[in-house]
Amino acid sequence: MNIPKRTAERLIKIFHFLGRCEKEKVTSVDLEKVLGASQDVIRRDFSLMKIKCGKSNGYDVIQLKKIIADILDLKAEDSGKERKCCIVGLSKIGGVLLDDQIFSGSSFKVVAGFDSNVNRTEILKASFPLHPLSRLKQVVKDEGIEYALLSCDSSEAQQTASLIEESGIKGIINITCSIYSVNIPVVNACPVLALTELAALTA
Amino acid sequence: MNIPKRTAERLIKIFHFLGRCEKEKVTSVDLEKVLGASQDVIRRDFSLMKIKCGKSNGYDVIQLKKIIADILDLKAEDSGKERKCCIVGLSKIGGVLLDDQIFSGSSFKVVAGFDSNVNRTEILKASFPLHPLSRLKQVVKDEGIEYALLSCDSSEAQQTASLIEESGIKGIINITCSIYSVNIPVVNACPVLALTELAALTA
Repeated sequence: MNIPKRTAERLIKIFHFLGRCEKEKVTSVDLEKVLGASQDVIRRDFSLMKIKCGKSNGYDVIQLKKIIADILDLKAEDSGKERKCCIVGLSKIGGVLLDDQIFSGSSFKVVAGFDSNVNRTEILKASFPLHPLSRLKQVVKDEGIEYALLSCDSSEAQQTASLIEESGIKGIINITCSIYSVNIPVVNACPVLALTELAALTA
Repeated sequence: MNIPKRTAERLIKIFHFLGRCEKEKVTSVDLEKVLGASQDVIRRDFSLMKIKCGKSNGYDVIQLKKIIADILDLKAEDSGKERKCCIVGLSKIGGVLLDDQIFSGSSFKVVAGFDSNVNRTEILKASFPLHPLSRLKQVVKDEGIEYALLSCDSSEAQQTASLIEESGIKGIINITCSIYSVNIPVVNACPVLALTELAALTA
């Protein structure tokens, strides 16, 4: 199913909220508060996605969570299936991500780290192997890695992103402060790019 | 001017790309590659924003950059005006952000850090002052801080986000892995939430 990006983002937010929700039912008003979006928008999303588990007294939390998981293919979160990721660039934020506690409770599991600086891959410690960047393609193939968190230096971002794309990875989380050009999906998680977006939103 | 969020995101990407661009002219095909969006989408954005500096051989880089900066109110990047930010929560990624090199070259300047753990604010070092969380409202007011990067523990995210909202801050960069409810804009820069979005996009 082709899901509009904004709808997908809202469904993801709702899904996370439901996971922490201690009630049996949630209302449109609850969801409105969580999303900062109007009830109309939420109803339109639900109608578009053919979500029909709402009754007059609200949505059943377990049922709604299951439906959204099916739509977003997030079933892994419940079934325990892991989605394998790697970190590319191990200084600064990349170094912090070596602590796999950050990913605990999610369906994502970091199984490898890469850096162009071989000293770094030899010195740093993690619960998964760290490799020189030159081994990226082979390790991605051997391990079946789906996603890369790119946190290399800005100066290396384009060429490293291209290498990741060639490795067959499905998409990139961009933690560098660079914009680069690849033909696979990129989601930004760079604080500076996020600030730029926020400044535009609040201008 | 009210800019649709997706259009703003694309303009931000184009703006960053133009900043690194070494050519005098860029074509729609260049922009298409940068954005991963079709030329039609770009032309629609430009038409919507009344951007008319395109000629048959492309867009003038300097002129286009200036127009987009005006639209997004990103002039600060060129004029040297600083936008003041603070980091709330100084462990993990928040701790890495104490290195203000990450923000160099941007118009954003971190002027304060906060943590509910007073030991942490006393031990950590930064080029700007670190305060106990209880001083947030006062410091935000005194310093004229506009944006907060929220990187506290997930368990404290909602109450800390509410405190930030009350302080009069314009918007939050969410680096926690939590979804919380506030009435000011939030832009996600959390690797795990970004992975969830990416997984939905590539499903």
